[in-house]
Amino acid sequence: MKSRIFKQDHLLGIEDLSVGDIELILETAESFVEISTRDIKKVPALKGKTVVNLFFEDSTRTRSSFEIAAKRLSADLINFNATRSSLTKGESLKDTVLTLEAMNPHIIVLRHSASGTAKYLTTFARSSIINAGDGFHEHPTQALLDALTIKQKFNTLRNLKISIVGDILHSRVARSNILLHQKLGNNIALIGPPSLVPDEFREMGTKIYYNLREGIKGSDVVMMLRVQKERGARNYFPSIREYRKFFEINRETFAHAKKKAILMHPGPLNRDVEIETSLADSDKSVILQQVTNGIAVRMAVLYLLKGEIDEVVA
Amino acid sequence: MKSRIFKQDHLLGIEDLSVGDIELILETAESFVEISTRDIKKVPALKGKTVVNLFFEDSTRTRSSFEIAAKRLSADLINFNATRSSLTKGESLKDTVLTLEAMNPHIIVLRHSASGTAKYLTTFARSSIINAGDGFHEHPTQALLDALTIKQKFNTLRNLKISIVGDILHSRVARSNILLHQKLGNNIALIGPPSLVPDEFREMGTKIYYNLREGIKGSDVVMMLRVQKERGARNYFPSIREYRKFFEINRETFAHAKKKAILMHPGPLNRDVEIETSLADSDKSVILQQVTNGIAVRMAVLYLLKGEIDEVVA
Amino acid sequence: MKSRIFKQDHLLGIEDLSVGDIELILETAESFVEISTRDIKKVPALKGKTVVNLFFEDSTRTRSSFEIAAKRLSADLINFNATRSSLTKGESLKDTVLTLEAMNPHIIVLRHSASGTAKYLTTFARSSIINAGDGFHEHPTQALLDALTIKQKFNTLRNLKISIVGDILHSRVARSNILLHQKLGNNIALIGPPSLVPDEFREMGTKIYYNLREGIKGSDVVMMLRVQKERGARNYFPSIREYRKFFEINRETFAHAKKKAILMHPGPLNRDVEIETSLADSDKSVILQQVTNGIAVRMAVLYLLKGEIDEVVA
Repeated sequence: MKSRIFKQDHLLGIEDLSVGDIELILETAESFVEISTRDIKKVPALKGKTVVNLFFEDSTRTRSSFEIAAKRLSADLINFNATRSSLTKGESLKDTVLTLEAMNPHIIVLRHSASGTAKYLTTFARSSIINAGDGFHEHPTQALLDALTIKQKFNTLRNLKISIVGDILHSRVARSNILLHQKLGNNIALIGPPSLVPDEFREMGTKIYYNLREGIKGSDVVMMLRVQKERGARNYFPSIREYRKFFEINRETFAHAKKKAILMHPGPLNRDVEIETSLADSDKSVILQQVTNGIAVRMAVLYLLKGEIDEVVA
Repeated sequence: MKSRIFKQDHLLGIEDLSVGDIELILETAESFVEISTRDIKKVPALKGKTVVNLFFEDSTRTRSSFEIAAKRLSADLINFNATRSSLTKGESLKDTVLTLEAMNPHIIVLRHSASGTAKYLTTFARSSIINAGDGFHEHPTQALLDALTIKQKFNTLRNLKISIVGDILHSRVARSNILLHQKLGNNIALIGPPSLVPDEFREMGTKIYYNLREGIKGSDVVMMLRVQKERGARNYFPSIREYRKFFEINRETFAHAKKKAILMHPGPLNRDVEIETSLADSDKSVILQQVTNGIAVRMAVLYLLKGEIDEVVA
Repeated sequence: MKSRIFKQDHLLGIEDLSVGDIELILETAESFVEISTRDIKKVPALKGKTVVNLFFEDSTRTRSSFEIAAKRLSADLINFNATRSSLTKGESLKDTVLTLEAMNPHIIVLRHSASGTAKYLTTFARSSIINAGDGFHEHPTQALLDALTIKQKFNTLRNLKISIVGDILHSRVARSNILLHQKLGNNIALIGPPSLVPDEFREMGTKIYYNLREGIKGSDVVMMLRVQKERGARNYFPSIREYRKFFEINRETFAHAKKKAILMHPGPLNRDVEIETSLADSDKSVILQQVTNGIAVRMAVLYLLKGEIDEVVA
């Protein structure tokens, strides 16, 4: 483990990270990858530190990923069940967090339905805040684990064409990925129906396509986004059948990407809606590798924010 | 701890175990019994290993038993709340498990309402699967902890008469116990109303009785099953009052068993439905000892599946 | 850490504690305060011990406080979700606790809506019971953390005037505080509408005031109680507006206390109902310090009940 220092107090979004920060996180994660896939000895880097999962939206997979990451670093992990907490007694978010903070946790992992909530917490909290998804804003550890997966496949994170397909408008995953690949200088194509890929995104330096085959052409990476039925995404297109007809990735549409292209999805999948089952399960898909890398990236972020530098990892 | 090796990768059911496997589990559990009842030092046998409780049916007692067992072996225990997970977002069981597996847990403890689910998982999962109850099929750790309790009382697991009373038809506890005591060569009596003890069970080599006193005669062990009101068991008999009249175990009916007979129940009890309160609380009852043994048996199974042989326990 | 011995097997209420017991808990807590606010090393005092949170009422903040306290002492902490447990299958409280006990936990932390439940458990349980709130009866760790906070501010716990304002009738926090400050010989003023501060409380040696300004006069400590809208407190006064008019603590009303008086609240706050926001956030308020002290006091109680004396803490 190099002694290069992570200069951030929090991880709120890719927006705040320098290219050096991103590279440091990914290199640190790489050193944790091996640990995560083998019969492990625990790493004592966060022994005696308390990490709180403060989730205002249910997300078993992201919550569990942070929980496993924290425990592999020997931290104490507290699941603070915010949906059944004092908030139901009318307490404000600020009072909930101030109360939690008074218990002196070292890191709070926050998921909240409102954009900007993670940043708001840093205006009064003393612990390190990790944004595990805030509304339509950012989900930085997802973009970082995606980047780690891409790096493992292509041995580089430069000069790639990254296509992101689906509901760009409401996707914090898309937003964090766009910001990350812009910083690294990759080409970004956003693909979806006009209602879900507004023109404003052009100002972020991306190219917009309303035709899947056309947009995907020459892509190294195709990232599918989930059709979020439960969030009313259907208000933005006529029907699932219609959406699938134009924007499902399948063997035929995926063939327009480069021969060595990889297929990504943040999960959970809507099989045979945005992604064809046989393609999702093919060797083109790196979807489960993304999940595996999630542990390593979250270990890296927890470690860089609060780990002891002298308790060398590897 | 002997170095005899457990040859199973999973614990799906008693059906798959040899007599040697059963004896190895029980002997290993015996070495953990002492640890569980005393002021303990933690056993480091699963340090750095991750055990996931994946429960699709609520069961605080079984879930907690596995959680305590895992923690006493120094494992990291993750409660993956399946009822509120991505499944509610339409994800399939297979995708949920594949995602969980990509986080590289060592053991998944599964409870599911569908028979055969645990076995299904082994067709694609790399981690060890422990069946903590699958539909009407099996609940092997329950039968094993019952066996440990019987062994402690009679100092043998051979030449005993085991009577099982109640809803045999829908009971995975009954099924696992029948399979276990058949393998060990004990005599098994199944007792209940015809609607809940179908003739097919005779083919398993058991004797069937519709009369409690008659069936219980000469029993060493009387296992009562829970009337599962919440699963509609009442469709199979006229009323609770009627059921109780014919099949409640009480001081009078229990007197038909051997003088040294013991009374078992997997819990939770329906007091004064299938079991009379004063008998349940008498010294004939080993119900709480069963619970205590549950920790030791689950420690043994976790240890035999994933423990380090060279990290000797005792 | 002095080797003075805590003579209690349980912590059911302040009622059962001697002045010596209270002082021992507070002194032990003081030695944990430093640990809780710094970058900690874990204390191994409860290593290998199992603590169960058995909460029949939701309370994320108290539950989390005990969880963090237990983990900082290296105990294994099991959250036994009682609202979704076997109880919903018709099991009695006694059977739930006996089952839990058969798993040999060392300490059970109980919250229950019925007064006297914690004491009831001690009639059959072998583990140590900590009352984390039972109905309208007691909440001893709250009174102890309040006392620790007062001691830190005034450097004494003698010759103080403690005013408690609000719904005294239904408050276990008030009851535990009244008992504690009576034992220590402080003056206690109870303030609220006649419907919520019945005359019987005079028999406990307190003074009763129906006028906030009058009651508060000369107070060293003003403890506000929460208006428990969710428990129907509003049946006892005409409206929130009316209650606020007469019993809200704000800069004007608080000015009637001593110049160095402190403001306390057990949380969660109803801002601008019983407590004015600007005062709650002022340097008069020690509300968050109470939360911080909660960890230290709970560590002290857990340690004194089940810690190894020879594993010296400091």
